[in-house]
Amino acid sequence: MASNIVKHENHGILSDADKVEGLAIMMNPKSVAIVGASQNPDKVGHVILQNYLDVGYSGKLYPVNANASGKILGLESYRNITEIKKPIDLAVIAIPAKFTSELITECHKAGVKSIVVVSSGYAEIGEVKLEQELIDLANKYKIPLLGPNCLGVMDLKSRVDTLFLPTFKIDRPSIGGVSFVSQSGAVGSSTLDIIANEGFGLSKFISYGNASVIDETDILNYLAKDEDTKVILYYIEGVKRGRAFIEAAKKATLKKPIVVLKGGRTEAGSKAAHSHTASLAGSYEAYDAVFRQFGLIRADDIQDFVSFSKIFVSQPKCTGNRVAIMTNGGGVGVVGTDSLYSNGLQLAELSEESKKALKKALPPIVGVNMPIDMAGDADDKRFSATLDIISKDQNIDAIMAITLFQTPGADSRVASTLIHYGTTMEKPMVVVSIGGSYTGVHKMMMERSGIPVYDSPNTASRALAALISYSKYLHRMGK
Amino acid sequence: MASNIVKHENHGILSDADKVEGLAIMMNPKSVAIVGASQNPDKVGHVILQNYLDVGYSGKLYPVNANASGKILGLESYRNITEIKKPIDLAVIAIPAKFTSELITECHKAGVKSIVVVSSGYAEIGEVKLEQELIDLANKYKIPLLGPNCLGVMDLKSRVDTLFLPTFKIDRPSIGGVSFVSQSGAVGSSTLDIIANEGFGLSKFISYGNASVIDETDILNYLAKDEDTKVILYYIEGVKRGRAFIEAAKKATLKKPIVVLKGGRTEAGSKAAHSHTASLAGSYEAYDAVFRQFGLIRADDIQDFVSFSKIFVSQPKCTGNRVAIMTNGGGVGVVGTDSLYSNGLQLAELSEESKKALKKALPPIVGVNMPIDMAGDADDKRFSATLDIISKDQNIDAIMAITLFQTPGADSRVASTLIHYGTTMEKPMVVVSIGGSYTGVHKMMMERSGIPVYDSPNTASRALAALISYSKYLHRMGK
Repeated sequence: MASNIVKHENHGILSDADKVEGLAIMMNPKSVAIVGASQNPDKVGHVILQNYLDVGYSGKLYPVNANASGKILGLESYRNITEIKKPIDLAVIAIPAKFTSELITECHKAGVKSIVVVSSGYAEIGEVKLEQELIDLANKYKIPLLGPNCLGVMDLKSRVDTLFLPTFKIDRPSIGGVSFVSQSGAVGSSTLDIIANEGFGLSKFISYGNASVIDETDILNYLAKDEDTKVILYYIEGVKRGRAFIEAAKKATLKKPIVVLKGGRTEAGSKAAHSHTASLAGSYEAYDAVFRQFGLIRADDIQDFVSFSKIFVSQPKCTGNRVAIMTNGGGVGVVGTDSLYSNGLQLAELSEESKKALKKALPPIVGVNMPIDMAGDADDKRFSATLDIISKDQNIDAIMAITLFQTPGADSRVASTLIHYGTTMEKPMVVVSIGGSYTGVHKMMMERSGIPVYDSPNTASRALAALISYSKYLHRMGK
Repeated sequence: MASNIVKHENHGILSDADKVEGLAIMMNPKSVAIVGASQNPDKVGHVILQNYLDVGYSGKLYPVNANASGKILGLESYRNITEIKKPIDLAVIAIPAKFTSELITECHKAGVKSIVVVSSGYAEIGEVKLEQELIDLANKYKIPLLGPNCLGVMDLKSRVDTLFLPTFKIDRPSIGGVSFVSQSGAVGSSTLDIIANEGFGLSKFISYGNASVIDETDILNYLAKDEDTKVILYYIEGVKRGRAFIEAAKKATLKKPIVVLKGGRTEAGSKAAHSHTASLAGSYEAYDAVFRQFGLIRADDIQDFVSFSKIFVSQPKCTGNRVAIMTNGGGVGVVGTDSLYSNGLQLAELSEESKKALKKALPPIVGVNMPIDMAGDADDKRFSATLDIISKDQNIDAIMAITLFQTPGADSRVASTLIHYGTTMEKPMVVVSIGGSYTGVHKMMMERSGIPVYDSPNTASRALAALISYSKYLHRMGK
């Protein structure tokens, strides 16, 4: 682990700064060599090359295969990476583990600037020596290396995409402000797939596998500085350099929210994590204490990645927990109220001024108490009148608009009204819309416009509570 | 409330049995009169009649409108219900509240067997006298009446559908074994809409509104006996006849699972419930104690309705909590293990026999420990070999198959394998599949075949815990 590094001669060793720089090159390469590229669709190298073509990568692509003759997927191919004789920003390595050491030396000769090894068959199956060779060579030649045993990297803007999962099996997200780091390829790919079906977009995905050279701390240092990244998601089972990670996190959380799902929170889970990634998970209590102390946001499930991301990426900070609920569905307002208190929030009280204004603006059927039940026939005008008043009420810190699209008055004008207020007012707003096809269309319309929409009051309240807790941390830290 | 009933002359009063019988007629009527039916698409009576036509109701339909001339939506119309002169099993009333009392008398004259009043404008807005008239007349004429201020009833088999929500705004579920009862129309309609997009189907939906005559206890008595209903879902804010409801629930839970979401669990929620349905909610602790004592299953959120329904409607009972996890995605197996313990379950240990058999049947890369990580290249053969062995292991009470469809080996043959074992073995099985479009197709394939599929390990564990808790209750009660 960390002690591996000190074994090397000093002159060649990769510094933390080298690795951060390596990640920057890896995520935005002008040229990519794919070693193991193949015409055979069953090969990993085929899927990777095909994906580069599918997503429209605009840099240079060099397929490399020792048995190559002629073109691979229409591109000129090379038998050896040294034959390319042009600058290579990134080499993606997808060949059997036993051949990789030799290849690293060839990468050095070819002037490769960064390497992603997606191949598996190293420390994770006991081949510790093979992995050590990889580490030694990367350090010797000073080439930042990600992996092995990983999915690699995806950047939605530069269109780098080393995932060896076909695009028909896993949807690709749109461009956005969330970056996601996963120690597990499985958690990574399945989470990517659900993010792709949400309204918010992704900036970068990094699956780092065995973290032999570049580890979770380097990635955190890189993403903390990355301007396109507004929110960072982490799935980790263990941390290689505990102290360094905490230092990095401490700085990073002052700049942007970091949501962490820790695999191995329970004793049995920790045992499973150990046999999965050989992570020495440590007690979760210790992790949890550190998370709290440094303002990291704790996720309890994969779905939290999605529900937390959408509020953090779009909504303003909020240090108060008085939440106004407005709804066109009375019963869901009741469930919503319950959900606030289950998550440490409270129902706001309307100011006398707001009460008067609401009485004037709304029909007599609408009671001017919290939660505001605008009734089942509420249309965009009633939503607008209500939002206009409560968005200015100083007794209210945040707004939960529970909007059911099954009712007669709810249509795309209501969605537009929510988008208008949700994107222009100073308070954070979450929308809860529960339903099927018709609701889904309106949900997507709002989400693509930067309004976080949830399919249950409890999920919305959990997300709001996370936003408020992080905002309070920043406030305590003088930010 | 309950005391209203004793005011009436005894000879006309509706008994509990009358109301249960009334519900049976209401849910499967051979003829329906829709009072307030209209050619004007803005009218509730138009939407109801159109829905009956849309869903293909095969009984007789009689549109009634005081101003009718000629046909309404192609059907012969009547100015007064007494003009129909044919048997009328159900009258759906969708006219202003002030006209309903007179109409009940006309229904009596016309020999109507049951009434659903969808109109609002009664006790819920302070018009207590108007509601009392309705109660008095229904009792006097001995006509079981549902409502007012409700969405009414839906039966997927008989195709009765009094919902005044257009079919394009709310998807209709397929036919299945779950019946859903909601005091709130909003919770009802939005939940219906999400159920429609799940693989399991619905038997009946009953929105009872003010519960003036038929109340939640009558409905429970009816559904407990209904053979098509395998699982009952309840959204309630308050119960009119506490003791009677408990008695009914006590009997019903011995026959079928009852999942209850209680609106107004917190003080503020309870206050909101009071202003919503004038329900005197009572302390949630008291409710919770009763729920526990009589084996009712507590839902904490609307999404629990869906996740609990799918396991109860399809999986066998299970009194042990030792859960085997098998997965083709290591990291999600770790998260899955954590989720078991967060929900009071535990990871099963393989018997020595199973370990030997698995070692023989699976490639060396697969460790034969829990959770079983079949590796990312697992195909249907590996799933099948694993299931074959663990389905027979006496140390295992239930199986969680975490199946990621992003991986190369996972395809519809894997889904078929899961369906085969999930529907033939004696242990309950849940599948966790996290993802987008490609995953969604396989999820629907499995759900339609009776396999409960969840989009997060935590949701799956919650559902398993609910199944086990209910099974243990039945066991304690000697069932």
